Amino acid sequence: MAGKEIEKLIKAVAKLPALGTRSARRIVLYLLKNRAQSLAPLIEALQEVEKNVKPCAVCGNYDTSEICSVCADPARESKLICVVQDVADLWAMERVGFYKGKYHVLGGVLSALEGVTPEDLNIESLLERLEHEKPEEIILALPATVDGQITAHYLLNRLKNMPVKVTTLAQGIPMGAELDYMDDGTIGLALNSRKPM
Amino acid sequence: MAGKEIEKLIKAVAKLPALGTRSARRIVLYLLKNRAQSLAPLIEALQEVEKNVKPCAVCGNYDTSEICSVCADPARESKLICVVQDVADLWAMERVGFYKGKYHVLGGVLSALEGVTPEDLNIESLLERLEHEKPEEIILALPATVDGQITAHYLLNRLKNMPVKVTTLAQGIPMGAELDYMDDGTIGLALNSRKPM
Repeated sequence: MAGKEIEKLIKAVAKLPALGTRSARRIVLYLLKNRAQSLAPLIEALQEVEKNVKPCAVCGNYDTSEICSVCADPARESKLICVVQDVADLWAMERVGFYKGKYHVLGGVLSALEGVTPEDLNIESLLERLEHEKPEEIILALPATVDGQITAHYLLNRLKNMPVKVTTLAQGIPMGAELDYMDDGTIGLALNSRKPM
Repeated sequence: MAGKEIEKLIKAVAKLPALGTRSARRIVLYLLKNRAQSLAPLIEALQEVEKNVKPCAVCGNYDTSEICSVCADPARESKLICVVQDVADLWAMERVGFYKGKYHVLGGVLSALEGVTPEDLNIESLLERLEHEKPEEIILALPATVDGQITAHYLLNRLKNMPVKVTTLAQGIPMGAELDYMDDGTIGLALNSRKPM
């Protein structure tokens, strides 16, 4: 059909998350049609990221420096470390702009199904940071899934004899939600964790 | 939030068709996580396409040679030219594998709304091919939209004094469709174009 270079590119694009062969074909044709405005800048941006971006040696965030801009920022509170599953979650927290502490990226959550064990996650480096940075509070901002909550309990267990307060994000009804559209689990949880007004 | 290199890449990816900022972020994080298996091969595939792939000088298909593999194939009937809107449609026809003639890529359809005039399309090169290649039949495989049909009628008008038969793809009920789910226009058209069994 198309040349083997095009087929190879379609395959490489189709492997990216949220894309399949059909959307990959559309993207490749778009790039071929818009060489100057699209293909060349995309290659350049990819090369710059490949060359310059690496995980932060302290927290695991991606940045161009050895220590990321969050870890290096003296204005951020070093008494607080927020543990997240992934850099995507760190970015989500940063978009909110409300949190002024530091982060620690676990690199995933424990999963019996996918064979993720504690050794696969950045847990040892978190314990080392506890010794060196002596934070007052660790906030577990892990996903509200079964695997996420198992990971949170595993971490709580590892941290329980250490001189640090461990907290977790509140669970309940999300802002703007209609009760009628919420699942039973969330309503039950929100009812159990009800608070005085 | 993230470094400016990452932001630039997210913006470049978000501009691709079918993608937005959220999916671009996911893709960029995936590439950063899977450098060796994903980022490097993607850059390489993009560079190969940028360097080697160009539009065919005859029909407008994309390939690595000056004349594309369809135009250069002596086994394809040169008596038939199928006019398509875009290379994506050419690829769709080739996937079916049924058509054994040649192609001509218009590069779009006439559109009053988007300001596409006959000069913007590869119409002159089609007329030149008529003189040189003397095909017996031109098949208009243009989209079944208003703009596509206007373009088909414009081409029919340009071709009417030439010694060539002009045909178009049949319109009607697509294979496997339930009548109840078809729009009124399609049912009316299929009824008007009914054929003896």
